[in-house]
Amino acid sequence: VPFKQVEPLSHDSLIKRAASLATDSSSTFLSQTSLALIDAITEYAKAVHTLIALQKRYLDSLGKLTPAEEDSVWQVIIGQRAKVNDRQEDCKHFESTWFSAMKLCEAAAEAAYTSGAEHASVTARTNIQLAQAQVEEARKLSLDADKKLAETKVMEVQRMAQYAASLENNEEEEVPEAYLRED
Amino acid sequence: VPFKQVEPLSHDSLIKRAASLATDSSSTFLSQTSLALIDAITEYAKAVHTLIALQKRYLDSLGKLTPAEEDSVWQVIIGQRAKVNDRQEDCKHFESTWFSAMKLCEAAAEAAYTSGAEHASVTARTNIQLAQAQVEEARKLSLDADKKLAETKVMEVQRMAQYAASLENNEEEEVPEAYLRED
Repeated sequence: VPFKQVEPLSHDSLIKRAASLATDSSSTFLSQTSLALIDAITEYAKAVHTLIALQKRYLDSLGKLTPAEEDSVWQVIIGQRAKVNDRQEDCKHFESTWFSAMKLCEAAAEAAYTSGAEHASVTARTNIQLAQAQVEEARKLSLDADKKLAETKVMEVQRMAQYAASLENNEEEEVPEAYLRED
Repeated sequence: VPFKQVEPLSHDSLIKRAASLATDSSSTFLSQTSLALIDAITEYAKAVHTLIALQKRYLDSLGKLTPAEEDSVWQVIIGQRAKVNDRQEDCKHFESTWFSAMKLCEAAAEAAYTSGAEHASVTARTNIQLAQAQVEEARKLSLDADKKLAETKVMEVQRMAQYAASLENNEEEEVPEAYLRED
């Protein structure tokens, strides 16, 4: 006999084990979704910072580029804006999964508690708090990026106004329209 | 190298796997709690039927037993009533675990759905319905037992009244008080 059982397992002990397994896998699921969400937020913040850098470089070069150069620069900017939108969609996508994982872990912690698997319940709650803290931390990065992007917007409006004024004085070419599009 | 990976796994595929594992273990937990609850309900119904049988037997023998015999009979009945109460407590205990398991499975089905693990989500919902149906079935047994116990109660009151009347006529011994206690 590979192993012998001293007495048949009680319903309570089987339920406790099953509750522990359920909290374990719920915690694993929460970890996966947290990692994915944190990655998505980080990628979003990176994309925003790249956009900010591109826009600053464009503003710095206003009036110094040939129309063809200017055109290719704002093609890159438009491409980067699309990338920022994509990264934002990723964030929304993983955020909904993450929320459902948080709810699942709450339910697992509750189930473990009612089953008498206090240790598993406490572990699940700790994992929930940890995930919350990690995601909050990542969100700070993206909020910071959003703030910097808004600042660049202000700077952009000022620079474009200055540039438009200098163009009026010199009667030169107009600000490329496509750059001003908000898509 | 024991195995080679063609390309690194995406967050989405890892999340789907984790969601499937979470629904699997939640379903296992639901099965364990369902089995325990159904067992508890069945044991309760059995205990009630035994009580009914004991009470009927007592009523049938009213006036035919010696005081000592009567005393031992209602000691058994009181013991059985306590057993019924214990089984009812077991039912309440496993019912709360079962409810938390149902909630956990709902959360797992929802999490699987938002993760794109539709198959796991459907499986979890099927398990929820199955558990609900099985527990409903068991509850019918205990409701039936409760109904029969109530009928015995009516019969008991009638018989005791008849017996009391016959005692008045014969001026014999009184109905043992302890038997009438509702504890």
